[in-house]
Amino acid sequence: MKTLRNAIWLIAVLMMSTCMVSCAEENTDPLPSWNDGATKTAIIDFVQDVTKKGGPDYVRPQERIAVFDNDGTLWVEYPMYTQFLFAFDRVKSLAPQHPEWKNKQPFRAVLEGDMKTVAASGMKGLMEILMETHSGMTAAEFEKIASKWLATHKQSKFKRPYTECVYQPQLELLAYLRENDFKTFIVSGGGIQFMRPFTEKTYGIPPEQVVGSSVVSEFKIKDGKPALVRMPKVDFVNDKEGKPVGIYEHIGRRPILAFGNSDSDMQMIEYTTASQGRRLGLFVHHTDADREYAYDRKSHVGTLDKALDEADAMGWIIVDMKKDWKRVFAFEKSNN
Amino acid sequence: MKTLRNAIWLIAVLMMSTCMVSCAEENTDPLPSWNDGATKTAIIDFVQDVTKKGGPDYVRPQERIAVFDNDGTLWVEYPMYTQFLFAFDRVKSLAPQHPEWKNKQPFRAVLEGDMKTVAASGMKGLMEILMETHSGMTAAEFEKIASKWLATHKQSKFKRPYTECVYQPQLELLAYLRENDFKTFIVSGGGIQFMRPFTEKTYGIPPEQVVGSSVVSEFKIKDGKPALVRMPKVDFVNDKEGKPVGIYEHIGRRPILAFGNSDSDMQMIEYTTASQGRRLGLFVHHTDADREYAYDRKSHVGTLDKALDEADAMGWIIVDMKKDWKRVFAFEKSNN
Repeated sequence: MKTLRNAIWLIAVLMMSTCMVSCAEENTDPLPSWNDGATKTAIIDFVQDVTKKGGPDYVRPQERIAVFDNDGTLWVEYPMYTQFLFAFDRVKSLAPQHPEWKNKQPFRAVLEGDMKTVAASGMKGLMEILMETHSGMTAAEFEKIASKWLATHKQSKFKRPYTECVYQPQLELLAYLRENDFKTFIVSGGGIQFMRPFTEKTYGIPPEQVVGSSVVSEFKIKDGKPALVRMPKVDFVNDKEGKPVGIYEHIGRRPILAFGNSDSDMQMIEYTTASQGRRLGLFVHHTDADREYAYDRKSHVGTLDKALDEADAMGWIIVDMKKDWKRVFAFEKSNN
Repeated sequence: MKTLRNAIWLIAVLMMSTCMVSCAEENTDPLPSWNDGATKTAIIDFVQDVTKKGGPDYVRPQERIAVFDNDGTLWVEYPMYTQFLFAFDRVKSLAPQHPEWKNKQPFRAVLEGDMKTVAASGMKGLMEILMETHSGMTAAEFEKIASKWLATHKQSKFKRPYTECVYQPQLELLAYLRENDFKTFIVSGGGIQFMRPFTEKTYGIPPEQVVGSSVVSEFKIKDGKPALVRMPKVDFVNDKEGKPVGIYEHIGRRPILAFGNSDSDMQMIEYTTASQGRRLGLFVHHTDADREYAYDRKSHVGTLDKALDEADAMGWIIVDMKKDWKRVFAFEKSNN
C-alpha cells in the first residue's frame, strides 16, 4: 500500500515539475512595469545570484530579508507626507475640544491653513502635532480613525485614495522577491500603527513585517477590558540612524536588499550593503513631473542629495523613475 | 498545448490530494508527547475550530498568531533563569577589567558566589548586572558571546546544553500550530538578542518572530564600518504589562493563542483571551519534581500564584506537567 502511494506521489511530483518549468517559460518577465536596461538587469541578476543553490552568492531563504522605505519609495509622499495631512485633519476635527489651540502654535497655523508657519515650527512643532493627534485613544480606536481617514481622503494630484497611489513597479518587485522566498519588510519613518492597517492589502506585507516610528503605549483595563492606550510620548523615531536600530530590534537580521528614496534612508542602505556577501541598495529618484513629481536635492519632503553624490562610490543604484519605470501607477493607462 | 497542460495539472493535483488524505490517516496524533485527556483535547479542538472553513470560529490564516513565553514555558528556567547565569559568568570574565567590582555590590556578591546577597539586591541590582554585562559591544559581538556561552555551558540538573532542555510537548505543539498555518512567536521577559541566535534552530522560530526585553542600541561607524552598538541603558522591559505592549509594537495583531507559565504572563494571556472570538490561554504548571521541577506559588523564579487562582474564572487552561506530558524532554527515554 505504501509503495503504491509513494509511486503515485513520485509520478505526480514529476508531472507537476515538468509542467511548472514549461509554464514558467511562457511568461519570463517578472517585472513588466520596469523598462529593460541596467537597473532592471541589476535587480534580476541579484535575485538570480542569491537564489542559485551552490552558487558563490547563494543566500539561504531564511536570510533573504528585503526592506523598503514607504513614503516616496512605495507610495506618493509629495507634496506632503500622507501622515502629516492626516494629522492636520485630526487637528481640525479635534479643535472643538481644544479651544486653546486658537492661540497656540503650530496648531493655530494648522487651523488657519497657514502651512508656512506650520513648516517654520520645524521638527519640534510637527512632533507636537503628531503626539497630540495620535494619542489618547486605544490601539483599536486609533486603527479605526486612521483607516477611516485613508478610506475617505484623496491624493491632491491624482484624485485617488492614497493607497491607490502606490508604485506598480514596486508592487511587482515585492511580489517577485516573495516568489523567490524573500521576506519583505517596510522600514519607514512613518508611524508603525498608521501603516499597519493597510500594508497587507496594499503591498502584501503583514503588520508584523512593518517597522516604523511609535508613541509609548500602556496596557490598561478600560471599561473592564484589557486595552492598549496610546500616550503623548515618543517611543522611537525610526528615521535616519534609527532605521538600522529598528531593523535590529524588529527583524534581528541584517537585510540583503534595501530600497529607499531619500537621504533618510542612507543609514539603512549603508547598513545593508556594508555587510559581507552579495547585497543590493537602491534609491527611487523622483524625476517624472508628468506621471508623478520631480524633486530631489532641495525638496522639503524626501530630500535626496547626499545619497545622489555617494551612490556611485557606494555601489548603490539610483532608479530613475522617468527612465526606469514603464508605468508608475496601476491606474495609468498602459503605454503598450 | 495549454489544454493538455491543464489536464496534466488537474490529474496530478487530484492524485496528490487523494494520497494526502489517506497518508494523514496513517498518523493522526499531532501531539504524541501529550497524554490523552482534557488538556490535549482542548488544544486540538481549538485548532480544529479556528481552522474549519465556514465554521463559526474560523480565523483567517493571517490572523492565526500564537505567542509563547520562553523561560519555563519552552525551556527550563529552574533553579535560575538561564540569562542570569550567563550574566553572572560575564561578570566573572569581565572582572579583570573592572577592579572596582571587588567593592561594589551586587558585583562583589556575584564574584564571591554569594547568591543570597545577589538576590537581596532585587530587580535594581539584577538590572545593573544585566546592563553592565550586555552592553558595550556591537550587535555582532554580542551574538557571538551569547552563542558561545550557550554552546559551552550545561544545565545543572540535566547536564545538557540549555538549548536541549526544551520541552518536547511544546516543540510538537509549535510544529502542529505551524502546520495549521499559525505564525508562532516568542514573547519573553528575556533579552531579545540573547534569544534570537538559537530560537530558529531550537524552536523553528525565526529571529523576527522573537519579542523580548532590550537595551538601547545606537548606529555608529566602527573601524570604518556601520555597526549597532549596545548601550548600558534599558530600552524596553517585555514583562507583565510590557508583554501586551511588546505584542502591539512587534506583531501589531492580537494573538488568538497565548502560552505562559507564570504570573508575569497573565497580562499577555488576558489580552489574548479577552478579545472576541475563539481564544486559548494556557499556563505550564511545573508539578514534576522527578522529570523536571515542582514549583509554583512561592517560587523565586516563574512564580505561578494569582494565575492559578484566576484560571478557572478566566477559562485559562493549567497544563499539569506531571499529568499532561507523557514525555518532558527529547533526551528522555520513551515510556512506551
